[in-house]
Amino acid sequence: MKRAFALADLTTPCLLLDRSKVQRNCGRMSMRLKGLGVGLRPHMKTAKCAEVAALATDGHSGAITVSTLVEALWFAQRNFDDILYAVGMSADKLPLAVQVLEAGAELLITVDNPWSASAVAKAAAAAGVELPVLIEIDCGQHRAGVAADGDTLLQVADALHRTGTRVAGVMTHAGHSYCCNSPAEIETVAEQERAAACLAAERLGQSGHSCSTISAGSTPTATYGRHYRGLTELRPGVYQFGDLYQAGLKSCSLDDIAATVLATVTGHHRRAGHAIVDAGALALSKDIGAQRFEQDFGYGLVCDIDGTPLHPRVSVAHVEQEHGLLRGTNATELFRQAPIGSKVRILPNHVCMTAAAYPGYHLVAESQLVDFWPRCGGW
Amino acid sequence: MKRAFALADLTTPCLLLDRSKVQRNCGRMSMRLKGLGVGLRPHMKTAKCAEVAALATDGHSGAITVSTLVEALWFAQRNFDDILYAVGMSADKLPLAVQVLEAGAELLITVDNPWSASAVAKAAAAAGVELPVLIEIDCGQHRAGVAADGDTLLQVADALHRTGTRVAGVMTHAGHSYCCNSPAEIETVAEQERAAACLAAERLGQSGHSCSTISAGSTPTATYGRHYRGLTELRPGVYQFGDLYQAGLKSCSLDDIAATVLATVTGHHRRAGHAIVDAGALALSKDIGAQRFEQDFGYGLVCDIDGTPLHPRVSVAHVEQEHGLLRGTNATELFRQAPIGSKVRILPNHVCMTAAAYPGYHLVAESQLVDFWPRCGGW
Repeated sequence: MKRAFALADLTTPCLLLDRSKVQRNCGRMSMRLKGLGVGLRPHMKTAKCAEVAALATDGHSGAITVSTLVEALWFAQRNFDDILYAVGMSADKLPLAVQVLEAGAELLITVDNPWSASAVAKAAAAAGVELPVLIEIDCGQHRAGVAADGDTLLQVADALHRTGTRVAGVMTHAGHSYCCNSPAEIETVAEQERAAACLAAERLGQSGHSCSTISAGSTPTATYGRHYRGLTELRPGVYQFGDLYQAGLKSCSLDDIAATVLATVTGHHRRAGHAIVDAGALALSKDIGAQRFEQDFGYGLVCDIDGTPLHPRVSVAHVEQEHGLLRGTNATELFRQAPIGSKVRILPNHVCMTAAAYPGYHLVAESQLVDFWPRCGGW
Repeated sequence: MKRAFALADLTTPCLLLDRSKVQRNCGRMSMRLKGLGVGLRPHMKTAKCAEVAALATDGHSGAITVSTLVEALWFAQRNFDDILYAVGMSADKLPLAVQVLEAGAELLITVDNPWSASAVAKAAAAAGVELPVLIEIDCGQHRAGVAADGDTLLQVADALHRTGTRVAGVMTHAGHSYCCNSPAEIETVAEQERAAACLAAERLGQSGHSCSTISAGSTPTATYGRHYRGLTELRPGVYQFGDLYQAGLKSCSLDDIAATVLATVTGHHRRAGHAIVDAGALALSKDIGAQRFEQDFGYGLVCDIDGTPLHPRVSVAHVEQEHGLLRGTNATELFRQAPIGSKVRILPNHVCMTAAAYPGYHLVAESQLVDFWPRCGGW
């Protein structure tokens, strides 16, 4: 039989997505949050793909989260009509927000300071549009956001109120869950995240600002929180694909990792003991975060063309712009399993960074190519 | 006067290119290599932009180097007709190479092993095209390439000869120049690079393979080599833009850095002492190589909107997907110089990685926007 759509025929490097794995990952999170009685507003910053968003929102309200306004516009144009832009808004981005509204979506934006609140509210008023606002709470990561128990929270709400802007609620993100060393620690952080969002909402309510949205979440805290009482929704994202970092956190298993980079072996450097592939720093990213868990994850873990990790383990030990150098404990075995001209699949360290280099996903089902799903990028 | 094309009006993050700096950088390298009597085949892997290639090749043959075949095709379609693909070729990429030829360019390819040599030569013969080959030499980096004094060099040449493929010469890249600690060390590596290429060419000549191209080069070795006798050309690339890594190597000064990321300050986290910008890991890349030279380069060095570094020094200390956290020695001063809503420019650590996130360059001359130069990406 002619294998017209075989993986081996793809030009490399390229990005593969295993359909059954992404379906399983999405279904598991959806069921879990349904069971715990909290809404799911999946973060699409990883996938940036309408087909994946359809899987992730299945059985929920259809609400999504995005990391850029270009992403918001992409989804608004594909019939997603309830979108939270979860990065601090600035007034200069108002024209893009207006485009999102014109495409037919409701857009929730985020601010964490009175200055931005006023500037954005005034720009929206001048453009004649309504942009309901979530106030961002710092639940312990100390990246952005105001303290749930501090004065700034109410100052931001007042600044919005003065310009006639609706305070739609609060949002927080426990990014410090990524620093945890066990599911038990993640559970503790999930409770911090929940409690901070609920406290902030309660204080706003006491000041006359009713919060219809009380939003929290990251993949680890959505995976290991004991309960989410008081929250209206969670915003995990990377769980849709998984990666080596999430596997290190135990938010997924290696077998759950749905997105992989297909690469071609272009040479063997026998004296140095490595194989060379055509997936380097641009194709994989230079994120080495997963080395926190296992040094030998390198820039990615190497599998055969069917997605099974090579044994003994082989990783991308070094990257340059278009070169990846594969090393394992046994070079002879590496050269035998990855001959020149053959294809390998690489599990990414941090799939949000890796996927951003590609225009879309070659969808794989039972080792055959079945579709191409485009993704958006840029700003 | 209405500033219709002011920097402050751009949607951020975006990529700026200072016209006078890129002209100066290109002119300096061009003059130097002309003075030393060696050809310049600039590597376009950093800029990936036809307008920059025109500046870089000005006064030379017009030959260029590329890092992907998509890049080769982009330039072939823009009237560059002498292109070296400087990454090890594999047979599966033959269809792209054929497209480059059909666009009217001569394409030189690179191999470093008999297996690839045979496979590529056979694929080219089957497609009815001629692809002259350079054999890649390992001059000390131990990334790819064969030893200049070893048997494999002649085995590769013989494999090519057997399939009727023309051996056009040799190429090498002293990537280990990036590990040097002084211009004197770089000069030594430049001589290793030159000597390896010349030895390999001499040995091929003795075996009946005349080398019309003897190609070497990296930005550091093209900057600090004492002479290049015996080489026909050098292939530096990142010198066109410069970056913090090259500044650390003393291949450029901070003032030479031509490509910068424009970002908006979206918040101040007063307790944590950082400002937040909308240029994070995707906008800057996660390359931290320049920290080898100065820890406080972080993920980039922060300048005001006119490109002058803030004082005291401020860097992007931490990045997440769409967040960059700016820190300096004096937070009060940072908040004063970078108020919420203002714009900053960020000098990149490794511009090849950073530029890859963008569709092109907003060209800046005397602090005004004067053009947009598109760039290619992907594979």
